[in-house]
Amino acid sequence: MKSSSTVQTHFLSAQDVALIVNKIGPAAALRGMADYIRQDFLRWQDFDKCARVASHSAGGVIELMPIADAQTYAFKYVNGHPRNTHIGLSTVMAFGVLADVATGVPRLLSELTLTTALRTAAMSAVAARALARPGSRRMALIGNGAQSEFQALAFHHLLGIEEIRLFDTDRAATAKLMRNLRHTALRLIACESITQAVLGADIVTTVTADKTNATILTPDLIAPGMHINGVGGDCPGKTELHPDVLRGASVFVEYEPQTRIEGDLQQLPADFAVTELWQVLGGKAAGRSTESQVTVFDSVGFALEDYSALRFMRDAASELGVGQALSLIPELGNPKDLFSLIGPVVEELALAA
Amino acid sequence: MKSSSTVQTHFLSAQDVALIVNKIGPAAALRGMADYIRQDFLRWQDFDKCARVASHSAGGVIELMPIADAQTYAFKYVNGHPRNTHIGLSTVMAFGVLADVATGVPRLLSELTLTTALRTAAMSAVAARALARPGSRRMALIGNGAQSEFQALAFHHLLGIEEIRLFDTDRAATAKLMRNLRHTALRLIACESITQAVLGADIVTTVTADKTNATILTPDLIAPGMHINGVGGDCPGKTELHPDVLRGASVFVEYEPQTRIEGDLQQLPADFAVTELWQVLGGKAAGRSTESQVTVFDSVGFALEDYSALRFMRDAASELGVGQALSLIPELGNPKDLFSLIGPVVEELALAA
Repeated sequence: MKSSSTVQTHFLSAQDVALIVNKIGPAAALRGMADYIRQDFLRWQDFDKCARVASHSAGGVIELMPIADAQTYAFKYVNGHPRNTHIGLSTVMAFGVLADVATGVPRLLSELTLTTALRTAAMSAVAARALARPGSRRMALIGNGAQSEFQALAFHHLLGIEEIRLFDTDRAATAKLMRNLRHTALRLIACESITQAVLGADIVTTVTADKTNATILTPDLIAPGMHINGVGGDCPGKTELHPDVLRGASVFVEYEPQTRIEGDLQQLPADFAVTELWQVLGGKAAGRSTESQVTVFDSVGFALEDYSALRFMRDAASELGVGQALSLIPELGNPKDLFSLIGPVVEELALAA
Repeated sequence: MKSSSTVQTHFLSAQDVALIVNKIGPAAALRGMADYIRQDFLRWQDFDKCARVASHSAGGVIELMPIADAQTYAFKYVNGHPRNTHIGLSTVMAFGVLADVATGVPRLLSELTLTTALRTAAMSAVAARALARPGSRRMALIGNGAQSEFQALAFHHLLGIEEIRLFDTDRAATAKLMRNLRHTALRLIACESITQAVLGADIVTTVTADKTNATILTPDLIAPGMHINGVGGDCPGKTELHPDVLRGASVFVEYEPQTRIEGDLQQLPADFAVTELWQVLGGKAAGRSTESQVTVFDSVGFALEDYSALRFMRDAASELGVGQALSLIPELGNPKDLFSLIGPVVEELALAA
């Protein structure tokens, strides 16, 4: 019989994760998370993968994203409600769990709203290191909402991006980004249009929130050698790239069956060729092969990245002593005696009757 | 802009739910939960339903069970690891969430280990009230593990069962059940065999835990008019009833697509006729039609029951003032400014550099 502590779940609140990132520093957190993601993508075959389970409604979507290897099971709960910001709520909110495959005990429950922004940016940087031209220094960042600063910092610290050209239909969002990153070494330039932002960019990151089939990028905006980091087109009916942008590029995806449904790829026929990123990272497929090639990372966010992010936060929390125990699962002296939790009252009621 | 309290999640720990059940009393908790389940089954068409998402491993299974109507989304995390009891852990552990469909905010996070045992027993009683012979007084209860007392109490309080004949391959489990229910009005009889337990029973409840294709009940044990409440056959490769028991009975299920995969029904061809219980409860299909008919409720546990159980616990906790606020989602003054959670440190690092 194990000790009574064996079913305790460690809990990391939104404040706990902010504390961890503040203690480590955002650059180190992004680097660490990128390392964890890369490690896990290199053992892609170890994972039991499936497309996420989505519940769509008029205002948005709620999704569950499970994944497991032989030791650890992970899942994320995440929503996407673009109109939430009008009522003071985040578009994307998330939390997740790590559990032991051998017993089913949930070991970690963590906020994943802040963590998802970090992991998405770290994933984008991992992909861009394999796909963008070496020496890329200038990025356009279209969409300056909740995730944009994380993308900016990831490309600054992990790829050496020095200048970011910003555009958002909401000028206040751009101003907020510039304020938040004003003390970094990044050169930040607010642009009047997508065209102006994209001009001369080595990398274009699109991270807009509208749940529509938008065409943020059209073929006339694309220059030879560009890498496009398409983050915002991530569920059915929500795209950012004109289909001809994809047709004129080499397209890389996280998990093909999911991206065909959710990515910008949803606009193209099922036989349009794409490459899964793990194959590039593992040297099994080519990434960028020429200077002039246009590459697209059609990012939708895959459960494996959350597995990596949860692992990273668990290890960081353990090292820093952050978080608290949560009684999610009852402690039982005899596991067949669940009734012992409420047993005494039956006696009292029966005796009183 | 809503107040900062709008993203708080209410948390009910294992102790909180035990407290709620103790305050209400198990009989009232089972009755209340049965009422909620019945209400929700009567509006079956309002729900967006899917089979659960299972991750199987050598030792067990971890599942996610989502469901939603237009207002409320619910999901349950639940495991099934029959060998857990050998190391002092429960076979089944669970927790779940209620969220707002309109915004995605998770409103309730609750333990569901104790709650699942209550809801499974309440569901069995709801089915038996529609399917068992009126006037049933004697039940056989095969499998005396963690869920057995809840089944016993549900059938005692909701159906008027007065005598329960017990069998388990583990005699200590039977002794534990008899100890736990010794102060109730139930007549409890420990039997030496399944045959002895089943003899003369109006209702037979099977709730065994082994993940095997077992044959707890064979056709020779079945008497005319019996109602069989088959609870333990609930995932691929885990059955309790000989297929001829099903062939000789009218079989009722929760959600047909799921039961065909997970229930005892997995042993029969896809065209074997079954009736979904919501149709019986809503008067759209016949339940029991003769005294001599054998009825089977091939229970596997459906997400809607957890939706009902979470609703019940949420309302009871609210009425009794039980539980606490959990910071699962970050509070943001400006929802587009997620970065504000970690912003200050970037400044410090940059200024210090």
